[in-house]
Amino acid sequence: MTSNHIDSHASAEDAFERRNLEMDFEIERIAELVEERRARVVRLQFPEGLKRYGPYVAKRIRRQIDVTVLLSGNPCYGACDLDLDAEADLLVHFGHAEIPELAAQSVHFVEVRSDVDVIPVVNEALGLIRGPRVGLVTNVQHVHTLGSVRRCLESAGLQSSVGSGDGRIKYPGQVLGCNFSSARAIDVDEYLYVGGGTFHPLGVALATGKRVIAADPFLHRTSIPDANLIVKQRYALITKALDARTFCVLAGTKTGQRRLDLAFELVEQAMERGYDAYTVTINELTPWTLYQFPAEAYVNTACPRVTIDDAGRFKAPILTPIEFEMVIGRRALSAYALDEFAIS
Amino acid sequence: MTSNHIDSHASAEDAFERRNLEMDFEIERIAELVEERRARVVRLQFPEGLKRYGPYVAKRIRRQIDVTVLLSGNPCYGACDLDLDAEADLLVHFGHAEIPELAAQSVHFVEVRSDVDVIPVVNEALGLIRGPRVGLVTNVQHVHTLGSVRRCLESAGLQSSVGSGDGRIKYPGQVLGCNFSSARAIDVDEYLYVGGGTFHPLGVALATGKRVIAADPFLHRTSIPDANLIVKQRYALITKALDARTFCVLAGTKTGQRRLDLAFELVEQAMERGYDAYTVTINELTPWTLYQFPAEAYVNTACPRVTIDDAGRFKAPILTPIEFEMVIGRRALSAYALDEFAIS
Repeated sequence: MTSNHIDSHASAEDAFERRNLEMDFEIERIAELVEERRARVVRLQFPEGLKRYGPYVAKRIRRQIDVTVLLSGNPCYGACDLDLDAEADLLVHFGHAEIPELAAQSVHFVEVRSDVDVIPVVNEALGLIRGPRVGLVTNVQHVHTLGSVRRCLESAGLQSSVGSGDGRIKYPGQVLGCNFSSARAIDVDEYLYVGGGTFHPLGVALATGKRVIAADPFLHRTSIPDANLIVKQRYALITKALDARTFCVLAGTKTGQRRLDLAFELVEQAMERGYDAYTVTINELTPWTLYQFPAEAYVNTACPRVTIDDAGRFKAPILTPIEFEMVIGRRALSAYALDEFAIS
Repeated sequence: MTSNHIDSHASAEDAFERRNLEMDFEIERIAELVEERRARVVRLQFPEGLKRYGPYVAKRIRRQIDVTVLLSGNPCYGACDLDLDAEADLLVHFGHAEIPELAAQSVHFVEVRSDVDVIPVVNEALGLIRGPRVGLVTNVQHVHTLGSVRRCLESAGLQSSVGSGDGRIKYPGQVLGCNFSSARAIDVDEYLYVGGGTFHPLGVALATGKRVIAADPFLHRTSIPDANLIVKQRYALITKALDARTFCVLAGTKTGQRRLDLAFELVEQAMERGYDAYTVTINELTPWTLYQFPAEAYVNTACPRVTIDDAGRFKAPILTPIEFEMVIGRRALSAYALDEFAIS
């Protein structure tokens, strides 16, 4: 029985190892960096979708080099959230591209690009594209495919272009949940988004006002996100918040989500207009962390994706800074704009 | 309708204000400190039970002095968890006594003592006390009552004593969920715990092996916690963990919960004995933050209360460092001892 137990455990481990070998965690490069920097303690930080590989990656690093490895156990959803606690000499952050404006010597990024073939779903998307000028957008997992996507569109007689983003964006054509500058940088008729998830293509549509075709290579599915539906939902929340007298303004403390001066400014504006408002600093924003803070509406200056994507999970309207300015009468109600962490 | 709305809101605010006036948030002292230290930004941190008073206290401070007030939105369960983020010049921490070994110039503690009369429930507890030598223990909310509790016991013909704790304990007779040194400091036959909650009197019983009478002045209820029941539960988890081959060792990153060297040592010990083990650093330890870290048992070097009080909420056994040493054969299985943050 013991030997059976060990056998089944070993074969499960083998299967896991085979799966892992398909993903490039850059173990050799990490070992080199540890040696170059004479790091004694290295911390590995994974986003939620990759966290389960942590113990395995830690083991492979320790096999290569004598170093103490820590795994970051805190939730992580982007390169804006760097676990820079003093305990480690080197932070290796997996699954996201560096945000150039937050560059730090002590952080190394392992992007863990996807090797999925995007061309089949792009070919399918051709039937939805009207063109003729198509802007290409994607997330870091697929940025290396944009060249072949371009050729694919060109051979179908379409013009394609890829825009460069601002200081928050590392690669041409890359978008983040909080930054669509690479989409806005180009003058096109519509956009093709290559990648999984629903928020990024929706964000492109909201940020540009243009039609977006989303091509998901994992689910092999194409769709056209309805930005209008989101705008309607946002106006429903804005309308509800018009009755509010007390606002709780949230300021995030994660590395790349800090907009404390904006939070202060919003509280000032509210008080000048006779509203009651106060500022709460928070690391991990969840509906239950807000239960303790009574307010008729919340204003989130941290991650803009949470404000829109998770709106239904909060017990009171949660607004972006721009929406809040509409509510207190500082901005025209008709002037809707997406909240972004943009570098001017 | 609008005027009704305002009236009802105002009267609710009045009721809230009356309730608050009974609690001493030391507004004047905070205003003095802000002035003395020329603080521009002050952060207020409340434990969960007091968090809802935050916006009100912030407003009262702003009425006294021109300063920007931030509320800490992160969960907080003790003076071990100081929200020392760089954004504020001064942190005011409410509801806990300072932990002397963590003393920092930039933190001011407002203990928010309870004004509840403890004598009625102490009189009731007299019927359960065998004596003759009784050790008095309590939490910070009631430390100022120990003098009158002593007199009450003495007039009933009992000997009472109050012990001084180690560097983690501010007041004689005070206990924390992670430190019972003030109880162990005295040679008595049994203990009287004055205060609410079940974990502190249980901890005194576990740490000393003596009988404890708990007198809860809020619920006006006396009880004798059964430490044996907890020990049985702990041995059930220890026994289950004896089959584990892979351990996840948790290292807390809150100010006063750091035992990273201990975590490293435990991982080393496990690996020397042929087990698989890895270290995860975590700020807020919850069952769902562990879902991502596969292990057959967890070892918690952060808050000891969580390991015992919340054990049933985790999907695999969660052990204290001492229990883990039993499991890997480094300590006799019979040598049970409570995990404490003790200063030697």
